Amino acid sequence: MSNTQPDRIYLDELHVGQRFSSRSHVIDEVQIKAFAAQFDPQPFHLDAAAATHTLFKGLAASGWHTAAITMRLNVESGLPFAGGLIGAGGEIGWPAPTRPGDSLHVESEVVEIIPSRSKPDRGIAVVVSRTINQHGEVVQILKAKLVVARKPVEEMTPWN
Amino acid sequence: MSNTQPDRIYLDELHVGQRFSSRSHVIDEVQIKAFAAQFDPQPFHLDAAAATHTLFKGLAASGWHTAAITMRLNVESGLPFAGGLIGAGGEIGWPAPTRPGDSLHVESEVVEIIPSRSKPDRGIAVVVSRTINQHGEVVQILKAKLVVARKPVEEMTPWN
Repeated sequence: MSNTQPDRIYLDELHVGQRFSSRSHVIDEVQIKAFAAQFDPQPFHLDAAAATHTLFKGLAASGWHTAAITMRLNVESGLPFAGGLIGAGGEIGWPAPTRPGDSLHVESEVVEIIPSRSKPDRGIAVVVSRTINQHGEVVQILKAKLVVARKPVEEMTPWN
Repeated sequence: MSNTQPDRIYLDELHVGQRFSSRSHVIDEVQIKAFAAQFDPQPFHLDAAAATHTLFKGLAASGWHTAAITMRLNVESGLPFAGGLIGAGGEIGWPAPTRPGDSLHVESEVVEIIPSRSKPDRGIAVVVSRTINQHGEVVQILKAKLVVARKPVEEMTPWN
């Protein structure tokens, strides 16, 4: 976390209520089945016909697939935080399934900023990220505790 | 959720304090980089040399990769729940990084059982799953709300 990244935002530059929005990603049946085969091999993620007889009533992406896509979108275009996106943990929910053909984007909001007491070079930003489909439905809500770098001292004025 | 699965456990057969343990999975550098390239393309997940200068002080798996492996282990060998493993949401934390060469397994415990009031065929089991490496370190704690099927009426005795 010692390298400066001029185009990135430090903890000191964040404020509660600040919002970020990512680009979109279109998920298809091939992606859903490939992720499921590797990490979540259950009928409702692997087989459209079998999925109709399950709680999902049709093929749906693994919630962890939606989480992984959300991470990709936030890393590449959603949250330009200094030091990268490092999650300490959080709360996650999937209020609606992700379906083949869905176009997902992420809307995030900073809800809390907590400088570290013991480590002066970093702090925690609590960020709520909503993953939203093309119908405006929220398919995932993630309230994440992210470790964000503070502005290096050499970038501050000497009397700070 | 209408099909019966004789070798699977229904909500009615679970009890608080019940424990389950999964088989192990060995994660290597190839897997870590492949997941990161697709879903979490950051230096500390992609490049061992670059990772030494980051908070992780060496290559580490994406937390979402650890979550995905945990799901695979629980689906295949950890939690034999009727209707499959369907998460409504939960809390997740990564107290230690997952490293190349780690052998991970999952130890789970049922902490709460909540029959649905509106849907008599299902309920929620709250399950804490700890993902543990070969040194006994917990690399992930997941407290998940899982939708579990109730025992179909036709399997009960007529006077129940």
